[in-house]
Amino acid sequence: MDVVGQLEIGPGMSVAALVERMNHCGFGARRLAQATAIYEKMLSGDFTKFLTISGAMVPAGMRQIISGLIRGGHVDVLVITGANLVHDIIESFGCHCIGKAESDDAALRAEGKSRIYDVFLRDEDFVGFEDLMQKIMPELEKTLSGRELMSILGSQINDERSILRSAYEMNVPVFCPALPDSMIGLQAWMFSQTHRLIVDAFADINEIVDICYGCKRSGILIVGGGAPKNFALQSMLVTPNCFDLAIQLTTDTPENGGLSGATLSEAVSWGKISEHAEFVTVYGDATITLPMMVAAAMERLKGDRETSQEDLSR
Amino acid sequence: MDVVGQLEIGPGMSVAALVERMNHCGFGARRLAQATAIYEKMLSGDFTKFLTISGAMVPAGMRQIISGLIRGGHVDVLVITGANLVHDIIESFGCHCIGKAESDDAALRAEGKSRIYDVFLRDEDFVGFEDLMQKIMPELEKTLSGRELMSILGSQINDERSILRSAYEMNVPVFCPALPDSMIGLQAWMFSQTHRLIVDAFADINEIVDICYGCKRSGILIVGGGAPKNFALQSMLVTPNCFDLAIQLTTDTPENGGLSGATLSEAVSWGKISEHAEFVTVYGDATITLPMMVAAAMERLKGDRETSQEDLSR
Amino acid sequence: MDVVGQLEIGPGMSVAALVERMNHCGFGARRLAQATAIYEKMLSGDFTKFLTISGAMVPAGMRQIISGLIRGGHVDVLVITGANLVHDIIESFGCHCIGKAESDDAALRAEGKSRIYDVFLRDEDFVGFEDLMQKIMPELEKTLSGRELMSILGSQINDERSILRSAYEMNVPVFCPALPDSMIGLQAWMFSQTHRLIVDAFADINEIVDICYGCKRSGILIVGGGAPKNFALQSMLVTPNCFDLAIQLTTDTPENGGLSGATLSEAVSWGKISEHAEFVTVYGDATITLPMMVAAAMERLKGDRETSQEDLSR
Amino acid sequence: MDVVGQLEIGPGMSVAALVERMNHCGFGARRLAQATAIYEKMLSGDFTKFLTISGAMVPAGMRQIISGLIRGGHVDVLVITGANLVHDIIESFGCHCIGKAESDDAALRAEGKSRIYDVFLRDEDFVGFEDLMQKIMPELEKTLSGRELMSILGSQINDERSILRSAYEMNVPVFCPALPDSMIGLQAWMFSQTHRLIVDAFADINEIVDICYGCKRSGILIVGGGAPKNFALQSMLVTPNCFDLAIQLTTDTPENGGLSGATLSEAVSWGKISEHAEFVTVYGDATITLPMMVAAAMERLKGDRETSQEDLSR
Repeated sequence: MDVVGQLEIGPGMSVAALVERMNHCGFGARRLAQATAIYEKMLSGDFTKFLTISGAMVPAGMRQIISGLIRGGHVDVLVITGANLVHDIIESFGCHCIGKAESDDAALRAEGKSRIYDVFLRDEDFVGFEDLMQKIMPELEKTLSGRELMSILGSQINDERSILRSAYEMNVPVFCPALPDSMIGLQAWMFSQTHRLIVDAFADINEIVDICYGCKRSGILIVGGGAPKNFALQSMLVTPNCFDLAIQLTTDTPENGGLSGATLSEAVSWGKISEHAEFVTVYGDATITLPMMVAAAMERLKGDRETSQEDLSR
Repeated sequence: MDVVGQLEIGPGMSVAALVERMNHCGFGARRLAQATAIYEKMLSGDFTKFLTISGAMVPAGMRQIISGLIRGGHVDVLVITGANLVHDIIESFGCHCIGKAESDDAALRAEGKSRIYDVFLRDEDFVGFEDLMQKIMPELEKTLSGRELMSILGSQINDERSILRSAYEMNVPVFCPALPDSMIGLQAWMFSQTHRLIVDAFADINEIVDICYGCKRSGILIVGGGAPKNFALQSMLVTPNCFDLAIQLTTDTPENGGLSGATLSEAVSWGKISEHAEFVTVYGDATITLPMMVAAAMERLKGDRETSQEDLSR
Repeated sequence: MDVVGQLEIGPGMSVAALVERMNHCGFGARRLAQATAIYEKMLSGDFTKFLTISGAMVPAGMRQIISGLIRGGHVDVLVITGANLVHDIIESFGCHCIGKAESDDAALRAEGKSRIYDVFLRDEDFVGFEDLMQKIMPELEKTLSGRELMSILGSQINDERSILRSAYEMNVPVFCPALPDSMIGLQAWMFSQTHRLIVDAFADINEIVDICYGCKRSGILIVGGGAPKNFALQSMLVTPNCFDLAIQLTTDTPENGGLSGATLSEAVSWGKISEHAEFVTVYGDATITLPMMVAAAMERLKGDRETSQEDLSR
Repeated sequence: MDVVGQLEIGPGMSVAALVERMNHCGFGARRLAQATAIYEKMLSGDFTKFLTISGAMVPAGMRQIISGLIRGGHVDVLVITGANLVHDIIESFGCHCIGKAESDDAALRAEGKSRIYDVFLRDEDFVGFEDLMQKIMPELEKTLSGRELMSILGSQINDERSILRSAYEMNVPVFCPALPDSMIGLQAWMFSQTHRLIVDAFADINEIVDICYGCKRSGILIVGGGAPKNFALQSMLVTPNCFDLAIQLTTDTPENGGLSGATLSEAVSWGKISEHAEFVTVYGDATITLPMMVAAAMERLKGDRETSQEDLSR
């Protein structure tokens, strides 16, 4: 049996070095190391790469990690909540503010601030969002899929750090299974009151199921559960394929029976994930675990590339 | 200051009596008692009553509590995940099975069983579901809203204990903000490959926002967060109104910043809930807290009615 | 396979009836029903019954449930945190107050109130506690065990609803494995500055291990983990015996590797719990699950007794 | 208002650089950055530094972080569970093994392995522990404090990476408020059956309260709650002093009212922590957050020293 290695840390150590050593620890540390190893495998191999994002990741500052992954070619399919895209669009012209979780919420309302735990959003940024949306919403004869609408919106966002813009440029499909449940949905509806804009609720299914059918090997990184997790998993379910690699970063635990906290093993019983798959769940706040995992995987990938370049140059 | 009353219990005590006494306790017990008091107020007063359901409530056995509330006239608007409706439909002809959380998931797959924590679903029931859906999906020239589709499906379910059927009969609108993210969505899409069936992704917004505009006073019972919670809250947000009463039953806590665990106070900063509202979150598994709260509120309502009838008969 | 039974509730239903039906549900509801069945078996059979209490159960109003179990003969060994005994003693002459979790803690300090989540304790009650302790602490030549000190203190508490008093009267040993970590410990130390009072840190081990050795069959109800859970389990571990029945009511989950959230199955690997044992963990706030389980078990026991008396009277 | 800074990560970035940037994020990331800033302040300033350790930190691989902090002069008082010291002693001659959380616990027992989530301990290492303990337990006329016993044991551990040994060499007092609740307690009791060894349960209080009285300014790092957290806080409480800096790394949340998840703000209402204190709780698995925080603080301290040396050399 392998032995637990007591973790040694030192000043100046890189995130990758820390995560590497965590592989010899127990509990969350080992899970994080396993997730990083699986993610490196996913990114360096020939896998169709799904990324699902739930939870207020953009307000919390995770936007550039996500858009960076897209621009780096590390995402083939993005499934995301509408709310994260709303905040992505707001960041393209406005901002989120550092706030306090212990606030007087009635006073915040009076000041025109909406709170997301310890992050504040000013009413003026929502106004800017609404103005922008009414400007860039498309009027089209053709009935659209949600994915097509996301692509059109992405083409109009003038910020290369934007998730939507990055996906548009990199040709990565963006699926929003709960689009009506977001201020993008609300703005689209308002726009459609006076313009022709129709989105077919089920058209996205066609496209994502096609992608799933076409996968030879596939991997999925699930951040935070929710509808994005289920939409990706159920789309794979209706094909003969299943995920070969899977990572889940979540604060939910399985005991309440909800899908967000369901183990990836449970997904094996459904046939969503292969029984031969490598998978791991890291329990904890994704604002900590996602940056660590991605930074460590990036460093390893760079190391792998440099090593293989050295090999070539010999 | 009021004093903590040490809880006295005895054999034969009713759920309502237990919850009543919990009002003098601390922690979760008091929160449950407060929730019950708010719920009684909501049900007995002139409030537009929203119910949102997330988490695998139907597989866990909460179906008749929900359909019972609908049939009792205690729900004016239902916002629910597609998955719960899938399982509601399955219950109308099939069943869920008592399973074990600690199972060999690959073996389950081989046996044709899908696991939801400690509940199993047999492949044959999914097949039955698919057959039924392909039979009752409507072919229509007109573009539908999701709500209209739910109503049509509800009219075809032959089980008075069904949530969908009960809502249909009681004329309660059912909103599914993440409809594509469910097997109903998948079946609708398959059907639409060979038949005319178009659902406008944003049409539901129109109807629910209208309802919100029309509310004089309103209350919301949120079970489990997710897209249903947000869809109901955001719909109220775009009107001049806000919720006057709010209850949340959830296992999520606020620290991770996600909406499912966000406090109801946070919703005050957005203007979704009135700063003068009465609201409380009960942290815990809703398969325990929902039946307790509903059973206790039902008993009190009955008591209220009997008392007022006695008054009338004098 | 058994089928999930959709839960039916109605006004006036008893806690026992509700819990009985939960046995056919999933998730937490089923776990609570299983725990109640195990507890009924434990209380009605020939088991040495351990009860461990952690978490602020007395401030939250659970004192009389605990003392009621003791007086009902349902506890053979009590392992408890010192803090709960401190609050038990305070309740014998003072009180805990209904407070608010969202309070200005600096203002509370200025008002002389200490907060335990949403329960307040007034400084005057602490003063009363200190006075009482200095009055009833014993001066003795003999070196005491912690259990003996608890028994002496219990004999001096003038309140039959007290846990300590009830245990004293019912001859139930009370073990406090972290006695120094409580205000009883602090008061004992202050007293010992001017009087002779010596407690042997390890003497309790002798007595509890003897009890464990003497068990034919044994059951344990663990409320909230902590040192009491471990102390009871490790004491059984050093004997050839192990627990045959085990229930755990906790909000901790296993993923962080801590003992409080460790599964009871994990305890099987240590030999603390028999591999043939019946055991279940109910995840959730014990201020809700403990009263439900105890009320339901009491009703069933009463039903059993009445049934058997009827049998006798025939 | 300060603006949320979208986190930028890159290959090769140091842990300190990552944590520094997290200060501009929301949720757990910001809390971790705040904790690191407070910890750097604590370690670089003139504070009496308390460290409390609960949860299975040593089995999970955190031993050398703890002993490293002690040897680095960053700990003035250590309050720790007996279990962590047991595992510390086992590591001095034996090991912990990499296991699996999803194991057949009855089979593990048959193989002589005890499981701590995903870490295994072999029976032979327990036997080695017992042999060692019976060899190094002291026979003394004098009644000891727990702290004195820990110091004597530490002097006999032949491993400079040991927590107990490091504390012994660095003259750091080690307090175990629940000493009987550990296998050290069990072994001490066994030894005392045939040798003279008496530990006064309350003697530690004397020493730690003296330390608290002597503090000018003080800081506390709380890992995992439990008896160690409370023992340190209550010892400060009985003095006129209170903590000026406080950090808590925990997976517990406040809603269940237990002390482990209680906010540090709650401790202000008791007077344990100064109302002017800087404090923060980081929610999450300490096997991830502790190494990150310590590695980042070490790097900053080194940077500070180098900067100040440069200043001196000018």
